[in-house]
Amino acid sequence: MQEEYLARAERIMGRIEQLAAISEDPAGVTRTFGTPAFVRGRALVQSWLEAAGLATRVDGIGNLRGRLISRNPGAKTLVLASHIDTVVNAGKFDGPLGVLMALDLLENLAAKAISLPFHVKLIAFSDEEGVRFHTTYLGSRVVAGSFDPTVLARADAAGVTLAEALTAMGADASQIPADAIPAADWLGYFEMHIEQGPVLWERQIPVALVTAIAGQRRVELRFRGVAGHAGTVPMDRRQDALCAAAEFILIAEQFALHHDQGLVATVGQLTVRHAASNVIPGEVRCSLDLRSANEAQLADAYEALRTYTAAIATQRNVELEWNLVQQTAPVACDRNLNALLTQAITGAGHEAVGLVSGAGHDAVPISAVAPATMMFIRCFKGISHNPLENVELTDLAAAIEVADRFLVELKRNVELGIKN
Amino acid sequence: MQEEYLARAERIMGRIEQLAAISEDPAGVTRTFGTPAFVRGRALVQSWLEAAGLATRVDGIGNLRGRLISRNPGAKTLVLASHIDTVVNAGKFDGPLGVLMALDLLENLAAKAISLPFHVKLIAFSDEEGVRFHTTYLGSRVVAGSFDPTVLARADAAGVTLAEALTAMGADASQIPADAIPAADWLGYFEMHIEQGPVLWERQIPVALVTAIAGQRRVELRFRGVAGHAGTVPMDRRQDALCAAAEFILIAEQFALHHDQGLVATVGQLTVRHAASNVIPGEVRCSLDLRSANEAQLADAYEALRTYTAAIATQRNVELEWNLVQQTAPVACDRNLNALLTQAITGAGHEAVGLVSGAGHDAVPISAVAPATMMFIRCFKGISHNPLENVELTDLAAAIEVADRFLVELKRNVELGIKN
Repeated sequence: MQEEYLARAERIMGRIEQLAAISEDPAGVTRTFGTPAFVRGRALVQSWLEAAGLATRVDGIGNLRGRLISRNPGAKTLVLASHIDTVVNAGKFDGPLGVLMALDLLENLAAKAISLPFHVKLIAFSDEEGVRFHTTYLGSRVVAGSFDPTVLARADAAGVTLAEALTAMGADASQIPADAIPAADWLGYFEMHIEQGPVLWERQIPVALVTAIAGQRRVELRFRGVAGHAGTVPMDRRQDALCAAAEFILIAEQFALHHDQGLVATVGQLTVRHAASNVIPGEVRCSLDLRSANEAQLADAYEALRTYTAAIATQRNVELEWNLVQQTAPVACDRNLNALLTQAITGAGHEAVGLVSGAGHDAVPISAVAPATMMFIRCFKGISHNPLENVELTDLAAAIEVADRFLVELKRNVELGIKN
Repeated sequence: MQEEYLARAERIMGRIEQLAAISEDPAGVTRTFGTPAFVRGRALVQSWLEAAGLATRVDGIGNLRGRLISRNPGAKTLVLASHIDTVVNAGKFDGPLGVLMALDLLENLAAKAISLPFHVKLIAFSDEEGVRFHTTYLGSRVVAGSFDPTVLARADAAGVTLAEALTAMGADASQIPADAIPAADWLGYFEMHIEQGPVLWERQIPVALVTAIAGQRRVELRFRGVAGHAGTVPMDRRQDALCAAAEFILIAEQFALHHDQGLVATVGQLTVRHAASNVIPGEVRCSLDLRSANEAQLADAYEALRTYTAAIATQRNVELEWNLVQQTAPVACDRNLNALLTQAITGAGHEAVGLVSGAGHDAVPISAVAPATMMFIRCFKGISHNPLENVELTDLAAAIEVADRFLVELKRNVELGIKN
C-alpha cells in the first residue's frame, strides 16, 4: 500500500519538474498569468488531463477545466482545484502541486474503475498570484461568479490590458459570465496546497486541515515631511519622513507581537523619494499588510494602528496619507467537509491538526458560493515564493493517501444521502 | 554708499540668472561636472572674468582660474573661490554666488584703481558636489595638491571614466600635479557661500563667519534577515530586515537629538530588496550620515551607534554589514582671517555670528595647506539643493560691503607686514 502511494508521489514529482522547466526566465520558475510560458505550461497540463480521460476546455479567463461526468442522476459537482500561475522567481510547488495531486486522484479512480456519485471538475486556475495585473483570484472569481468586469480594462506594466491579454492567449472573455458554476450545482470545493508556513515542518506532521483563511487589510501609506540638508538642519528642527515611517514600522510590529497570536502585521515595501545619503528624507511611501482569522480582531487592530500612526505623524509634524487598498474578510472552511477530512487524516494514522491559513487562496472566493476546504502539505522549513520551496516525497505519499480517503468518505456520504 | 552695494548686488543677480539659464534640464538648474551644460556655463563665466581684465585658463581638472598679478615683489596669493557645478535640480546660488561675488570684488578694485600687495586667484571649481563620480572636492583637491589620481579610472553611471570625461571637456589631466598651488605661495583662502541652513534666516542677520566645518562619517549598512510570506510566518519567528533598520533609524535619530547640539545623524537612503507588500523584508540597505565639528564627539558617536546597531542585529537574529565609506575630519577655520572677517562684519554694522558649517565645502581640502575661512550669506528659510533656494538683494548688498571691508583689512595687514 505504502509502495503504491510512493509510486504515485514519484509520478507527481516528475510532472512537477516537467512543468517547472517551463518558465519565462530559464534561471528559475516564473509563469505569470497569460505569458507564452504560462500558455505552454497550461498546454502540458491539458495534455495530461486528456490522457487521463477527462474532457477539457479553456474558459473565458484562461482557466483549464477537466470534467469527469457521473452517471448518477441529479449529481452535484465537486471541484478539485489549485492554480498554475506563479510569482516571479517562484518555487515549483505553490499551485501546481494541488492540480497534479487532483489529477493523480482521478487517475487512481480510473485505474481502479471506481465511479463516483457526483461530477468532478478539475480546475487549474489561471491567476491566483495576481502578479501581472495586481488583482486577486482572477481565475477562481470567474468560477465563483464574482468576477468584476471592470478589471478587464486594467493594464499590466507594459500597458497591455487584461482584455487584450485574454485575446492574446486565446481566451474568449465574453464567455466569463457563463463560466460561473451555479450555486445549486456545487457539492463542494477541495484544494490541496503547500502550507507556506513553518508549523507542519516544526511539528513533523505531513498534512493538516485548514479551519479558516485569514482576512486581510492592505494599506498604502505616505509620510510627507520636509527634505533638507543632512549637515545643516539641526536635529530638533527636522520633519524627517523616514523617522516617522520607522516609528510606524516598529509600532505595527510590536502591536502584532503583543496581541493575540493570530494577528500578523508586515511592512514589505518602503521607498524614499529623491533619496540621497546627505538629504533628510522629505517623502516616504510604504505598505502595511495586516491579517487575522478573526474579523473583530482585524478591525480593532486596523483602527488602533491607524490611530497610533496618525499620532506619530502629528507629533513629528509630518503629513500622513493612509489609503486602504484591499480588504478581504476572514473565511471559515466548511465544517462538514472538515469532519470528513479529519477522519481521513486520522484514518491514515496522522494527528489531525487544524491550521489557519495566513496566505490567501482560491478557496476564499469559492467559499462565498460553496462548501469549501483545503488540505495543507508540509513544505521545507515553511519556505515558499522562493526557489528553495520543497516537499518531501514521503510527505506527498502521505498526502495522497489522505486525499484518497477523503474522496472515499465523501463518496460514501453522498451515497448514503448525508448532506455535506 | 548703500546705493553702490545694491547696484553691484543687482549685477551679480543678473549674472546668477544668466548662468542658471544654462542647464542640462531646461526645467531646472542642473550642471553636473563636465557635461556640455557645465562647459557652456564655465565659458560664460570665463568671458566675464576676461572682460574684467583677468588672465584666465582652464586647469587639468577643468577648474576655471583667473589671475590678478600684484606688482609687490614677493607677493603671496589670496584665493577667492567657490564652485560652478551643481546637484541635480539645484538652486541658482549654491556655488555660483561665491564665484560671482569674487568677480564683483575684483571689478570693484579695478574700477577704483586699487592695487593689492598680493596676487589674487579667482577659481571656479569644476566639481564640489561630486554628483557624477561620487567623489568629494575634485576641483579643490587639485588646487590643494591632494588629488588622488586613482580616481581618474572611476566611471560615471554611463560607464564614462573621469579621465575620459576630462578629455571630452578639453582638460589635460597630465597637468594636474602642476596645478597645485605650492604651500609657500598661499596668503590665504576665502570662500563666500550661502548658509544652506536656517540660523541666519531665523536670526535675521545677513552674513556670518564660519568658525569650523563639521567632520563627517558616512556609513553604508546592510541588514540581512530572512524573507518570508507576510501571512504565514508568525510574528515571533520573523527575522525582518526592515524592522531592524527601523530600530537603527530611530536609535540614530534619538542619539543625535539627545547629545550635544553640534551632532547630526541622518538616514537618507533606504531600499528593500525584492520588496512586495506581502513579503517580509529579507534584506535592507541604508545609509548613515554623521557630522560634528568636534572630532572626539564624532568618533564617540560613531562607535556608540555602531555598538547599538550591532546589538539590534544580534537581538533580532539579523546579519549586519557596516561599511565606513567616507570620513572627513572637522576643520577649524583660520583664526587670523576670522579676526579680520569679524572686524569687517562689525564694521559694516552687523552682529558677528560664528557658525559651524554642517555642509562640506571646498575650504575643507584647502585648509590642509593654507589659512582658510568662509563667509556665509543668509538664504531663504535655509533651503538649499532645491529650486526654492534664494538670497535677498539687500542681504547680498550687505555681504558685498563686508567682503570689500575684509579685503581692505587684509590689504592693510599685508602692507603693515602683519602675519595672517
